[in-house]
Formats: sequence, structure tokens, C-alpha cells
Amino acid sequence: MTDALPPGSTIGILGGGQLGRMLALAAARLGLRAHVYDPAPDGPAQQVCAAATIAAWDDVEALDRFAQAVDVVTYEFENIPTAALDRLEGHRPIRPGRRALAVSQDRLTEKRFLNDLGLATAPFRDVTGQDDLAAALKEIGAPAILKTRRFGYDGKGQARIMPGDDAGAALESLKGAPAILEGFVDFSHEVSVIGARGLGGQVACFDPGENLHEDGILRTTTVPARLSTAQRTDAVLLAARILNALDYVGVIGVELFVTRAGLVVNEIAPRVHNSGHWTQNACVVDQFEQHVRAVAGWPLGDGTRHADAVMENLIGHDANQWPDLAATPGSAVHLYGKAEARDGRKMGHVNRVTPLR
Amino acid sequence: MTDALPPGSTIGILGGGQLGRMLALAAARLGLRAHVYDPAPDGPAQQVCAAATIAAWDDVEALDRFAQAVDVVTYEFENIPTAALDRLEGHRPIRPGRRALAVSQDRLTEKRFLNDLGLATAPFRDVTGQDDLAAALKEIGAPAILKTRRFGYDGKGQARIMPGDDAGAALESLKGAPAILEGFVDFSHEVSVIGARGLGGQVACFDPGENLHEDGILRTTTVPARLSTAQRTDAVLLAARILNALDYVGVIGVELFVTRAGLVVNEIAPRVHNSGHWTQNACVVDQFEQHVRAVAGWPLGDGTRHADAVMENLIGHDANQWPDLAATPGSAVHLYGKAEARDGRKMGHVNRVTPLR
Repeated sequence: MTDALPPGSTIGILGGGQLGRMLALAAARLGLRAHVYDPAPDGPAQQVCAAATIAAWDDVEALDRFAQAVDVVTYEFENIPTAALDRLEGHRPIRPGRRALAVSQDRLTEKRFLNDLGLATAPFRDVTGQDDLAAALKEIGAPAILKTRRFGYDGKGQARIMPGDDAGAALESLKGAPAILEGFVDFSHEVSVIGARGLGGQVACFDPGENLHEDGILRTTTVPARLSTAQRTDAVLLAARILNALDYVGVIGVELFVTRAGLVVNEIAPRVHNSGHWTQNACVVDQFEQHVRAVAGWPLGDGTRHADAVMENLIGHDANQWPDLAATPGSAVHLYGKAEARDGRKMGHVNRVTPLR
Repeated sequence: MTDALPPGSTIGILGGGQLGRMLALAAARLGLRAHVYDPAPDGPAQQVCAAATIAAWDDVEALDRFAQAVDVVTYEFENIPTAALDRLEGHRPIRPGRRALAVSQDRLTEKRFLNDLGLATAPFRDVTGQDDLAAALKEIGAPAILKTRRFGYDGKGQARIMPGDDAGAALESLKGAPAILEGFVDFSHEVSVIGARGLGGQVACFDPGENLHEDGILRTTTVPARLSTAQRTDAVLLAARILNALDYVGVIGVELFVTRAGLVVNEIAPRVHNSGHWTQNACVVDQFEQHVRAVAGWPLGDGTRHADAVMENLIGHDANQWPDLAATPGSAVHLYGKAEARDGRKMGHVNRVTPLR
């Protein structure tokens, strides 16, 4: 506990979206301050913080001032420019650390890291050009999916290749970005584990949730997930192995495919995760507070699940249903303060809780 | 629902203490903005809001600007200067309304209002001078308690008169403030009901909590309270009667003495209440969100209690125990961002939850 930041300390948050907003609210519950850094003004997170820096990611003076105003730096998304991280790291600790970011920013590095840990992933090949792609397709077979190594999210930066498709066109659609080809995994459903690791190495995991996607975007997470006791144990041990290997501090999201042969890691996100939002209304300490506790050097909290829950994302105009959602028994509505309800934009979510079965 | 303020609207909060802070955090969950007005800078509430007005209560220009920046005005304490309220009311609705404030700002008005509703209170007499006091003491008897009619909180502005005491000295200790003499109520314990009434008249009450005070300050609230089923029903009906009589909009705290003869109203607070903090971790929708929903014209939320809970205030240096408290299973720590842990100062609270018995 000697390294714990006392109440009144300031958590610096890179990124001003909804995850930053909910991190800032969690920090506030613990008597900690939040200071958000984002290039765009009036984002979801800035609305709930007394302190914000609105500046570009390459504004070294703003980065220096931000770092000096905070006690620790964390982030709500993994694609932060490396130069900005280098600059911040000269002043303050960044948690989770650089290794977690380096691994999760690059699909190729991530898959190699996971395989080296003995964890199963989809089959994959590095693709640097048309020749690579042809060879990879031959080995992995179609259908397969071509993904940029970096900067993909919510299904963006991906192209599906079906048998007989023009693979060259798929590669061109990625506009020359370094890519990998992934084979399909024959899975029954997807679950995710939200894990946490404290500054002293303490590990805790929330109960796995079962995810349903639509058009590449998470639609619902349901707890409990359909998992056998053995699978549940596997999921948690696997998350712990990743956390320890990365000497991780904070919350991580680990997406898993459930297959006949066991659990296959889809991807990891070195941050609080959309599939962990259900914890806000079904645990005493939720993923956001758990993350803040970890990066502030506090003991991890009690994430025991006390209710069954279904989290449903409110995407685009879904959010217009707020009056009905707010009136539904057992429902907690969470809205992000975004002005414009564009298609595919995450505007909020609703957690529906019921007593433990 | 036509009068509901949509997400993105701004709730103006008078008072920047911990109640304002927790109201602002609740507003944020619903996608609403908070703008706090307080004469002191860097208070608990301002730390969690992007917008704050730091100005005196008689600064009419600041009041006008504040009112124009918000969509509705609410408050975290009842002793707001009347002139400020008059000014604000010219611009925006104030919820709960002026009647609730007028009643609760004055112990004499409050007791008369309650008695007129058919609700029991401690016996009381208006005291305007030494002659009144002597007559009142004769009727009510000692021990009794002399209280200023206005501006009392946490046991301040009170003087106990025991048999044989010099009543004149007690009156002088109040420095000429208008006062009432209250007789003692022979009660077994104190409970409180946190009630809410929506803009359309919908009423909801949280489960009553049992309060323990030390040195005039709330120490713990425990749910469930020791009450018979009949008493529980009485408590809720009584709160509803008060809410309806005041055409109230928002959350109210009603403190009740439990006596052999039934429930006796101690006092009402036209705001979220310290004895309702347990709702944060034992209900899907807590008292803060319920208040925000009401004043924003939203439907009231589901305040069903899903756990047993004990709320313990962290007063003064109690808050130094935060590392141990944070590590205790089943505990949620809430800290208010106050820098200095003075004696008697509410620094935070901890909610300990256990499964429903």
C-alpha cells in the first residue's frame, strides 16, 4: 500500500470517450480527481471532469503540462500514438504499461504473444503483399478474414475472403496497411473475461459474460455466460496468465471463442471493455472502479456478482428509447452525453438485472 | 413525459458539497450535465463538473448567468437565501419547489405543517423570549431541547435544558435567534424514509433505514430497519402524504422516531439525505439518480432493495482508514474529495452490503 495514491490524487486519462467518462466517474467515487486528455472538445469524459486538456496527440507542451498535472496516466483506448506515450512516460507512470499496449496495438504481435503463452488463437499468417496473401490463403483456406495489424475496432479495417473471392481486391481495400490473414474459428459462442491486476500483483476476475455482436459491434453481454465449470475456470486462469505475463496493472478485456476443443482467444483489450459494463449494476465494485483502484495502487475491490444481468448497447437511434428504458423495472440506463446519434455510434447502454438464479 | 428534459440538458445544483457531488455523478450516468453554484471554489461537487459558478449567494449577475446556463434548478441543502431563490425562480423552475423549502427551513412552520397533516411530532412551543420560554417549559416539562427555528444542522443551534437548568442561559446561547422548545420523545430507535415524487405525481419510497447518531451526527444507517410490517407501511404512507401535500418534485428525507404509540416525525429534509446513501450499493437506482430523474421530469426508477446494507459515515480522521476499508469484501468506499479531515467533518462513507436475509 505504500505506493497507493491517496484520495485527492489525480488520474490522467488519455481519451475522452464513454470509457474515459465512466473511469472519471469511478475515480470520483473514490475521492480521486480525473484529468482527461483528448484532441476534441466537450467529449463524454470532459463533461464530468473539472480538468481537461484539449490538444493534439503531438502537442509536446500540452503533453508535458498534462503529465505534470496528474499523478498517474491511464487510457481508454489502445491506439495512442507511440510518441505521445514516450513523452508522457518521461514524467509519470503509464498503467497499464507499454508492453500491454505494444502487444495489443498489433494483431500480429498479439497473436504471437498469446501462442507463446500456450494459448490458442485463430490460425493466422503475416501478410505483407499479394504473394504472402496467396500463400497464406493456401495454408489457411477460405473463408478467412484479412485484418489490418493496427487501428482496427468495431469491425473496421477488415475484409472477409470467401472461397472464389478476389483476394487482391480485399488487400487493396486495406490501402496498403500491414495486415494478417486469420482463419475462421468454429465456435459456438463468444464470451469475455474482464480481469484486473493490482500494482502488487493481486489478480481478480469478474464472472465471464457472453457476447452477441451485430454488424461487428457488440450488441449484448449476458451473465452468467453459457460455460461449464471447467470452462469458467479455464477462462479465468487464462486471463490471469495474460495479466501476469504482461506484468499488467489495471483492467483487461479478454474475448474468447468457445469451441469443442476449448477456449480460443479472439483478442485482448488493455483497458475497460464494453463487455464489462454489466458490472456497474451487478457488482459492488465495477470494472471502472477496479481499473482506477489498480492504476492508483489501491487494493482491488470485491467484484463478486450479486445479480444476473444483460447489458444492451444503445447504438445510434436506439438511445431515443430512453424514456421507456428509464421506466422499465430492474433497468439502469447509462447515457454518454453524445449530442448526435449517428448510425453505429455507441450512445449508451442499459443494464437489466434480475436476482441470481 | 412531454416535460422531461432530454439527455444533454443541464441540471443546476445549488451547493457544492458531497450531496451535490453525488447528484452530479448521478446526472452524468443519465447523460445529463451538471452545473454547480457555490461561493467556495474547488468544493466536492465542482471537482466532478465541467461547469461551475463560484459566486456569492447575493451576486445577482452570477445568479442570472447560472440560471440561463441550466434547464432546471435543484439544491443540496435547504438553507439557501430566499433572495437568491427569488432571483433564480424568475428564470427557471426550482425543484423541489419553494413550499418545501419554506416548510423545512423553519422548525416551527415544519411542525405546524406536519401536525396539520395529522402527523405526530414532538410537542413544541414557539419561543420568542424569556417569558415564552418559562411558559413553554412549564407546559412541556424538562428535559426539553431549545432549537433555533432556522439554520440548524448536525446538532448545531441546539441547547438541552435539563430539570433545574438555567433556561435563560440556554436561550442566550442561541444569541437571540428565533427558537422553539421541543419536548423529548420516548422512542426506541430512529428510522428514515427516503421518498421520491416525480413531476407527474408518481411516488416511490426506498425501504426505511435505521439510523444511529453520535454527538448529533449520523453514524450508521442499517437496512432493513427494525420495523413491523404495519410500521413499514405507515412510514411509507406518511412520507407519501408529505410529498403529495407539498406537490413535491424530487427526493425527500423523512426522519421518524419509533415509539410505542406509533411513528413520530422528527424532521424532513427537502433533498437527498445522508441516511439514503446505502441505496448506492443496494438498489439499481439510488436516491441521487431518483432525485435527478424527478427534477428532470423523467420517470422514477426502480429503487427495489436487492441487498441488506449498513452505511457508515467516515467522519474526520475515520477517512484515513481508506486502505483497509477499500480492501474489505462487500464494501464500497465513497470519498468526497475534501482536502482537510477536520473533526466532525463528513469525509466519506462506506456501504457494506450482504445478501438479502
